[in-house]
Amino acid sequence: MAPFIASWGIIGAGWISSMFVADLALPRPEVKDVLHSVAAVGARDKARAAAFIEKHLAKGATAQQQGLRPPPVAVGGYADLFARKDVDIVYIGTLHPTHYEDVKGALNAGKHVLVEKPATLNAAEWQELVALATEKQLFLMEAFWTAFQPAVVALRAKLHEEKVIGDIQAVSSNFSVPNYNVLPDDHRIIGLAAAGGPLLDIGAYGMVPARVALTDNPANKGAAPKVTCAMSKTRMGTDLDTTLILDYANLGARAVCNLSFNARMPREHTATISGTDGEVVIHDVLCRITKFSVTKYTPGQTPQTPGKWGEPQMFEYSFPGTGLYFEADVVARDIRDGRIENELVSHKYTSETLEIFDEARRQGGYILPQGMEKVGRVGVEDARL
Amino acid sequence: MAPFIASWGIIGAGWISSMFVADLALPRPEVKDVLHSVAAVGARDKARAAAFIEKHLAKGATAQQQGLRPPPVAVGGYADLFARKDVDIVYIGTLHPTHYEDVKGALNAGKHVLVEKPATLNAAEWQELVALATEKQLFLMEAFWTAFQPAVVALRAKLHEEKVIGDIQAVSSNFSVPNYNVLPDDHRIIGLAAAGGPLLDIGAYGMVPARVALTDNPANKGAAPKVTCAMSKTRMGTDLDTTLILDYANLGARAVCNLSFNARMPREHTATISGTDGEVVIHDVLCRITKFSVTKYTPGQTPQTPGKWGEPQMFEYSFPGTGLYFEADVVARDIRDGRIENELVSHKYTSETLEIFDEARRQGGYILPQGMEKVGRVGVEDARL
Repeated sequence: MAPFIASWGIIGAGWISSMFVADLALPRPEVKDVLHSVAAVGARDKARAAAFIEKHLAKGATAQQQGLRPPPVAVGGYADLFARKDVDIVYIGTLHPTHYEDVKGALNAGKHVLVEKPATLNAAEWQELVALATEKQLFLMEAFWTAFQPAVVALRAKLHEEKVIGDIQAVSSNFSVPNYNVLPDDHRIIGLAAAGGPLLDIGAYGMVPARVALTDNPANKGAAPKVTCAMSKTRMGTDLDTTLILDYANLGARAVCNLSFNARMPREHTATISGTDGEVVIHDVLCRITKFSVTKYTPGQTPQTPGKWGEPQMFEYSFPGTGLYFEADVVARDIRDGRIENELVSHKYTSETLEIFDEARRQGGYILPQGMEKVGRVGVEDARL
Repeated sequence: MAPFIASWGIIGAGWISSMFVADLALPRPEVKDVLHSVAAVGARDKARAAAFIEKHLAKGATAQQQGLRPPPVAVGGYADLFARKDVDIVYIGTLHPTHYEDVKGALNAGKHVLVEKPATLNAAEWQELVALATEKQLFLMEAFWTAFQPAVVALRAKLHEEKVIGDIQAVSSNFSVPNYNVLPDDHRIIGLAAAGGPLLDIGAYGMVPARVALTDNPANKGAAPKVTCAMSKTRMGTDLDTTLILDYANLGARAVCNLSFNARMPREHTATISGTDGEVVIHDVLCRITKFSVTKYTPGQTPQTPGKWGEPQMFEYSFPGTGLYFEADVVARDIRDGRIENELVSHKYTSETLEIFDEARRQGGYILPQGMEKVGRVGVEDARL
């Protein structure tokens, strides 16, 4: 059977879009069922879209390299891209304050959507978009690409199918980029006008071990964790050090996720997942995981005889490129098969992410400027203010 | 000059006292300036004190082994021990709910005091004891032995004198013992009648990296950290999983200390201290630290060139026995020199520990049974209730 060709329109010609299309252009002969075509790239300035294509898509994506689709075209303005008949799925790589309106525009034009993280600025915005996508029967997913990486897929199976460390009881994770006082205060990842700070920028990655070990745990039965947050602030009012404590009542388990744009921490052992029979250590930066180790624990025969730790066993799953193609393939298959949401990174999954962010912002007093959130306003009693 | 002989009376003939006297009895010819004598051991039951001496002090402590003091005697009842002329310093190894009254009894009898952790059940109790010790000009210290271990002394110097990792920005630590559902619910370390749970039982150890890296940091200028606590509970009402987040405003640094009687976490890398120029990893259980590694970081020349991590350098400081003799020697020297408090583990230092515990208990809703706290009652508005 001929491979299904996903026909993408890209909006936003910045860094993350360049990484995404570079991965769509990476030949992977081992994948037989799907190919990718970037039909069009849209930017507010058409020349910028053209330069982006020239730099990152000289030969097009995989379907275009095989001559199965024409080369990408540059489009000035997002509405014109949404209107194109050759675009089936819009990838939204714009800055996160505009995600809500960009997704809405794409859905209203009848396009499926993959939107970068954070999907929206709050859970209320997301719920409106989910309602719209459901009404129009269009696919909508947050680009939580880490969930689909081979190491993460393998880890999920080891934890929940093999139960390699028994019942999971604790998760501790660290993700930080020491940007503060290095980047300009108004930079998109730390400035207030762009809803910056580690919570919204890297929070989804910092929570990967918690989500994989606890949210994805069948014994959790889909329940949302209780959130406790400590947040320190930048002089701009965005968050600087954010610690999320997530308590999963059904599991009797706690995750502690440290996020920071202040500290550089830690180099190795970015996360530990502790269970009754051992522990898993993740050895990579949490957005792109390629290796983890499993160390088993055998309890002593009596309370007086000490238990015994085995030797760590390392599991490695390296891959070429950035690895954004794993989610792209998944999206292509979902759309091919007529699904409007992904089974794993479902609408509810993203909603839970955003509800955690909302609660963290409420507790930490991180209030976005008036008008930035299009639906609701987190941390403000009267959302019209 | 002849060595100074510290003449101890021990009350409480349980596990921790047995570890302490075993260390007082360990010959250490390299220590020239102080020796130890256990003049008396007191227990509510005199036969138990006698059995304790037979088992743990067959040859007496170091001064007794050299024939410089008579062998230890067994005493029934603490008041009789406090009254003995041959006891200069009382070591209090009783259960923590009685520490306040035991310390008070010893001070009122004119004895110096070393009291096990937690010094008292709350900060208010401690402050009364400090006032009493000051009035009577008697030495009083909490037995925070980890502070004096060679690895910890070396670490403190490397962090603050050598500034081996630059400015410290983050500390993450883990200390847990999976006791819950293993020990009986009324066991002294987890039951409510003994003020059990990880906060009061192992909290001081879990905070060792934070205290050494941040509290002991001269740039902190002696300020107390802001506390955020998440606490889950046992069915008995004691704490089960306690996460302490300590924010040090003067340093712009955060410590996250995970304590648990639920999870077994983690096997290695019990703590990470992150600084602008690198990181320190502690590789031991946090009560008894013998090794840590230092990994230096060299920033890239421009924001575009990545920084470079060096190879970890391991520092090891092993020692025989448990190592409680380090604090015992320090106490002996303080008393010899006429001090009423230790410079490092000062009255204020212990006060700060207990204020952190108090605030954590307030936030977590951990309320001790009526009458257990002799001064104040944490978490209850009207302390007379």
